[in-house]
Amino acid sequence: MDSQTYPEYSTNYPLLLTTFMKRPVRYYPNQVGVVYRNHVTGEYLRFTWRQWYERVSQLANAMQNRLGIESGKPGVLGSRVGTMAYNTHRHLELYYAAPCVGATLHPINIRLSEDHIVYTINHAQDSVIFVDDVVMPLLENIYERIKETVKLFVYMSDKPGLPSTKIPNLIEYEKLLSAESVMFEWPHLHEDTIASLCYTTGTTGQPKGATFTHRQLYLMTLHGMARQSIVNTPDFVASDRLGENAVPMLNTPLFHIHGWGAPFSTVFSAQKVVLPGTFTVRGFCELVEREKVTSVGIVPTIAAMLLEFKDFEQYDLSSLTNIGVGGGALPLGLKTKLEKMLPNFRVGSGYGMTETAPAAIGAFVKKHMVGWAKDQIDEVMVKTGLPFLGLEVDIVDELGESVPWDDRTVGEIVIRGPWVTREYYKSPDKTAEVWRNGWFHTGDIAKIDEEGFIVIADRLKDVIRSGAEMVPTVLLENMIAMADFVLEAAVVGVPDSTWGEKPMAIVSIRPGMEATAADVVNFLNDYGVKSGKITKWMVPRLVAITADIPKTSVGKFNKKAVRDNLDHFLSIAQDMTQQAA
Amino acid sequence: MDSQTYPEYSTNYPLLLTTFMKRPVRYYPNQVGVVYRNHVTGEYLRFTWRQWYERVSQLANAMQNRLGIESGKPGVLGSRVGTMAYNTHRHLELYYAAPCVGATLHPINIRLSEDHIVYTINHAQDSVIFVDDVVMPLLENIYERIKETVKLFVYMSDKPGLPSTKIPNLIEYEKLLSAESVMFEWPHLHEDTIASLCYTTGTTGQPKGATFTHRQLYLMTLHGMARQSIVNTPDFVASDRLGENAVPMLNTPLFHIHGWGAPFSTVFSAQKVVLPGTFTVRGFCELVEREKVTSVGIVPTIAAMLLEFKDFEQYDLSSLTNIGVGGGALPLGLKTKLEKMLPNFRVGSGYGMTETAPAAIGAFVKKHMVGWAKDQIDEVMVKTGLPFLGLEVDIVDELGESVPWDDRTVGEIVIRGPWVTREYYKSPDKTAEVWRNGWFHTGDIAKIDEEGFIVIADRLKDVIRSGAEMVPTVLLENMIAMADFVLEAAVVGVPDSTWGEKPMAIVSIRPGMEATAADVVNFLNDYGVKSGKITKWMVPRLVAITADIPKTSVGKFNKKAVRDNLDHFLSIAQDMTQQAA
Repeated sequence: MDSQTYPEYSTNYPLLLTTFMKRPVRYYPNQVGVVYRNHVTGEYLRFTWRQWYERVSQLANAMQNRLGIESGKPGVLGSRVGTMAYNTHRHLELYYAAPCVGATLHPINIRLSEDHIVYTINHAQDSVIFVDDVVMPLLENIYERIKETVKLFVYMSDKPGLPSTKIPNLIEYEKLLSAESVMFEWPHLHEDTIASLCYTTGTTGQPKGATFTHRQLYLMTLHGMARQSIVNTPDFVASDRLGENAVPMLNTPLFHIHGWGAPFSTVFSAQKVVLPGTFTVRGFCELVEREKVTSVGIVPTIAAMLLEFKDFEQYDLSSLTNIGVGGGALPLGLKTKLEKMLPNFRVGSGYGMTETAPAAIGAFVKKHMVGWAKDQIDEVMVKTGLPFLGLEVDIVDELGESVPWDDRTVGEIVIRGPWVTREYYKSPDKTAEVWRNGWFHTGDIAKIDEEGFIVIADRLKDVIRSGAEMVPTVLLENMIAMADFVLEAAVVGVPDSTWGEKPMAIVSIRPGMEATAADVVNFLNDYGVKSGKITKWMVPRLVAITADIPKTSVGKFNKKAVRDNLDHFLSIAQDMTQQAA
Repeated sequence: MDSQTYPEYSTNYPLLLTTFMKRPVRYYPNQVGVVYRNHVTGEYLRFTWRQWYERVSQLANAMQNRLGIESGKPGVLGSRVGTMAYNTHRHLELYYAAPCVGATLHPINIRLSEDHIVYTINHAQDSVIFVDDVVMPLLENIYERIKETVKLFVYMSDKPGLPSTKIPNLIEYEKLLSAESVMFEWPHLHEDTIASLCYTTGTTGQPKGATFTHRQLYLMTLHGMARQSIVNTPDFVASDRLGENAVPMLNTPLFHIHGWGAPFSTVFSAQKVVLPGTFTVRGFCELVEREKVTSVGIVPTIAAMLLEFKDFEQYDLSSLTNIGVGGGALPLGLKTKLEKMLPNFRVGSGYGMTETAPAAIGAFVKKHMVGWAKDQIDEVMVKTGLPFLGLEVDIVDELGESVPWDDRTVGEIVIRGPWVTREYYKSPDKTAEVWRNGWFHTGDIAKIDEEGFIVIADRLKDVIRSGAEMVPTVLLENMIAMADFVLEAAVVGVPDSTWGEKPMAIVSIRPGMEATAADVVNFLNDYGVKSGKITKWMVPRLVAITADIPKTSVGKFNKKAVRDNLDHFLSIAQDMTQQAA
């Protein structure tokens, strides 16, 4: 019966990344699909979709014929293919060739500590590592500690030839490809074949490896595109309105949780993909101007670098109609200045994590808010947002009950849905810690308002317990960052004999501006307490002004380091108990 | 291990219609979600999403508690729930309650012949049939022939009470609901549970029942929404730009191949759904004006009815920004007139069939065509189009080889993909006829141009074989319809001693205009042959002018009836061999 009905082409048609890759070459073979600018030399490489697809096919042939890469099957990983690379056309080729031959892509986060990088490579048991020329020094540093695991290395560079190196088994990427056929018969994989293995940053303990199947990445991408069709603000739709003609620049590193999903959606959409290597301020401006980039995602730090760039106004950035800012609150002063220089600029919040691949919660303007004034819309857009289309997200108390939608009660964010990781690779105990009662437990704290908007309040372990109350530190940090004189702010709990803990704010001031601890407290009183956004007892009693807030390797506030050096921060903090009361 | 990783909430998260239904009630409980206008009385009913969802929940409870409806599982159908209804809120309630409790929805096509209706009900073995008050006479007519199969009937009406009827086991829908709780715990079904059973129109032989799983309908909907995000013409995106604020009117009957998918996408998108019962010209205009409808899909016949409606210009139809015309070629004169009265009007072709649920091929403006002049874009939009996002479509010769993309060579359309029906219910032989070599064979003939656009040429069985050549009749019909004096045109083959067959055109003229057989041939010579669109030998040698072209119950040309009455048509046809040569 099955041989007659062909369920594998019907009810069981597999959802594979292969489908994404085949679409642009079929309908736009001769159009430029991938543009790469070398961030060191400033040189450009351009590929039509056919050229890029043929390179992916050559790479796939090489993986099977030369590199001994083996395909996985549901429940059993294929060979792990590690990458140590920036955002180049080659990295995008690996993003498709590896999963689509059945192997497991392991994008190595080269911003982790060397210890953690070594750990993830040995834990994943990478068969082969593809490395960018500019990342070779890092690879040389760790080579001795991974050489038992990784037998083969492939060197990726725009310049022909191999460097002089102590690594014996190094192959040249371009030579590897040129020896292979541009034809490749892609296997009809099961959709549950594991496509990728992504490690968490491991702020506490060792990184954990989250696995994702083809089906999961396909469904995340498809829901993301479908979500675009129901976004309600005209400004936001500006680039979608251009459909396939949108020109996205992939700023988020491809080694960060699938580059926020862009490598998948942009290829399936046949949009011209602009790859900047890694971020440089001149490269950014030059690429926007030359390639007429329509959409980018940036973090606040990059926004600040753009504004401080002396040649900024010499570039024509008018094509940019869709700029999302994620990864932290955008200071008000920075936002105002950006809006003046980039009229189509908009702040949009979001929340995701390695385990959600990462799409989880995103800013959203609900249908009845469309006509609201800009400042009202902005208030909505800086809320973390609504659950991603197709995902179940809830905020629960310690008994697992949903918290009320009162914009006040906090609880833990729990998630389930088609693309939430099923398990940590080789770590059943860690998996059991997060997957409980049918929900993935994020360890993040949030509240939910009467419209269903979720606002992230804190990491569970960073919550300050002051008396019987919880002080959500991320909420405070984002609020302090709204002051126009503030560059960044971190809030941590310090021991207190009366309350158990009390909040301390560590604040850096924008270059060229001056402000005191009193200004911070006054701002919180005026902006937060009087408007009812926070309660009086949440205002930090201690405020330290410093240019030096500790950060992790991926740029998050390192609160553990603050606690480890608490005496130092207490010594520079001012007691603001009088003003705060 | 599985109990720790919860694959059913992760890698195996089921794709269910339940997800669509839950979204609007969660985020827009108090907004009007469903508007129904009774096409007989002109009265309105309005439901918030919460009200509508609670009614669906009551219906689900009734199905389990009162109607004995049983859930299916993969490979085994649940109880079949038949509907004989127009586009009402109740029909939309059935569209969700039945599949989401695990039953199989069977929307009965009430426009089929009574013989065929009886056949489909008995073949499907419907446990229960839900019937609109205005459809009761039809049910009474066929009752004796289905009463052994169907044990229970539910009567749906805006007026309380049951009619006097010979049908003994008739329950009142509104009473049934009001006895039940508004809370319902939706089952966590397997995504391969069969959600619907849709019968083909059966122009030859008996109707065949195509089955669709939850996964299939979910994936069709999601790909459709994702496709909206990459559509390239600003005009077309006008209503998408409004996202959730789009107001679709569901004109296509819900008993026609899932109402072209609208019952799924509009609910998931939380758009206000406008249900007109069945089409009336005044109801159409009134609903557009009062509900500010933004998008409708219409067939050419309805377009003609609108233009002939005397009060047409008294209505404000300016909210309409997205009008698709499908189901046949739009005559040029009609198109010009519509464009004048509805400035946002656009023609968009499409192709689908019961077995594809129905999304298969749709008009699409490719990225480099966006700047083209309107008449050039129109030429693109009347091509049948590109395969639907996520679907594999090919045109193959008799050996199964792909035809070249030369806009000339014709072959059979074959399809496979996530939502193509796996099988005809209880008909393995008919299934084996269409599913061969891993492809679903449509029996339709098309060619494909150098851009990948597919143009439907004919039904395989309607192709005229003239000498060594094939004359694609649908292509000719669409071309004749482009003449401004033509209302409709059908082309059939008649026996010819020299060529085997030769084409005969049967043409009806637009009311108020006059034209002769010679005008038809002259138009084809000027418009078709001189421009190279058709060859000289394709021009019909016989042309019959008549107001009476035979049609099937669903409004398609009934070529079998023409062939059965060939003598009549030959007697009124003029021999145009001289002019055609």
